[in-house]
Amino acid sequence: MADYRLHCFAQSGNAYKVALHLQLAGIPWEPVFVDFFKAGQTRTPEWRESVSAMGEVPVLEHGGRRYTQSGAILTLLAEQTGHFAPRDADERYETLRWLLWDNHKFTSYYATLRFLLGLAKTGETPVTEFLRARAKAAFAVADAHFGRNAFVLGDRPTIADLSMAGYVFFPEETGLDWDAYPALSAWRERIRALPGWVHPYELMPGHPLPA
Amino acid sequence: MADYRLHCFAQSGNAYKVALHLQLAGIPWEPVFVDFFKAGQTRTPEWRESVSAMGEVPVLEHGGRRYTQSGAILTLLAEQTGHFAPRDADERYETLRWLLWDNHKFTSYYATLRFLLGLAKTGETPVTEFLRARAKAAFAVADAHFGRNAFVLGDRPTIADLSMAGYVFFPEETGLDWDAYPALSAWRERIRALPGWVHPYELMPGHPLPA
Repeated sequence: MADYRLHCFAQSGNAYKVALHLQLAGIPWEPVFVDFFKAGQTRTPEWRESVSAMGEVPVLEHGGRRYTQSGAILTLLAEQTGHFAPRDADERYETLRWLLWDNHKFTSYYATLRFLLGLAKTGETPVTEFLRARAKAAFAVADAHFGRNAFVLGDRPTIADLSMAGYVFFPEETGLDWDAYPALSAWRERIRALPGWVHPYELMPGHPLPA
Repeated sequence: MADYRLHCFAQSGNAYKVALHLQLAGIPWEPVFVDFFKAGQTRTPEWRESVSAMGEVPVLEHGGRRYTQSGAILTLLAEQTGHFAPRDADERYETLRWLLWDNHKFTSYYATLRFLLGLAKTGETPVTEFLRARAKAAFAVADAHFGRNAFVLGDRPTIADLSMAGYVFFPEETGLDWDAYPALSAWRERIRALPGWVHPYELMPGHPLPA
């Protein structure tokens, strides 16, 4: 059994953040498929009791323990392995700041928009319009930042980039025009070009969804 | 001039998280009023350039530097002062996990619901219904946790509690029934009972709003 086991599924960008870290760092790991769509597995009392009280994916198993929350797992992996880690106290602050912002503003609105439009197939609603407006505001902040910096902390990728990269490679339509954010799009291409990069649908089990 | 200056306003629960930390810890600090409602001050290019690129409150000034993102500021203050700090690596992980969850699920949906209904006065819309459903899911997770733990990490309050406490004392109607979450409500009363506790409208400038 690999030292790291990741409960995940192909459509979860939050799981992809962790899977991509392990993959790019060359750390052996093993996926444990979570059948989110079939049975709402992560929302059952049994799952909450045995795996994650917050009812969420990803869950990382390591050293006989289970870890949840992608941003906390990324921080742990960076500390344990040194890969994609901040180098000093200032960088640790910046990393935490962007991890929090990603969870609050960047990943969250965009991921929920993609879930509703691309997976739940709600069609355009006042809620998708609301989420898209919030996502656009976050995209604009990111675009301005990447106009001045190749990666979140400057010249090299860190866990803050991996966190922001969670949902940016999924193909589903979101009604957001990436061409309107050229610096953000260029950052996405820099992530895609990292040695060892693999698309979430190839890195984690469960794609394609059954018809 | 105080060692800590906090850019804030009375209606910002994210600012309150930091103000409450400083207040409960007995650390001298000075508020700098941000007139968010009059002029959208935090959204202007000048504000983004000079204070916060993410366009957000709170901003903490200390030692000639400016810090943003409430969860990162709370972490910094805990490290600098020892107040409300996690005690070891396990507690640091748990604290980070709950800070991220608070930013993603607990504060964010509830705060946005309160903003739309209580301050922007949108009335009930599909968006407020969506946010309330998400907030209820987060409240249920918190209620279950506080049924087993007095505070997030167990028997004493930490920055994870202060983060979750950001918006829970505001009086505006959100359509969420706190009585349905007795353990969460009891936790709120334990926060309110902490020595030195002050309501956000008294702790920060700008209340009441001009008519």
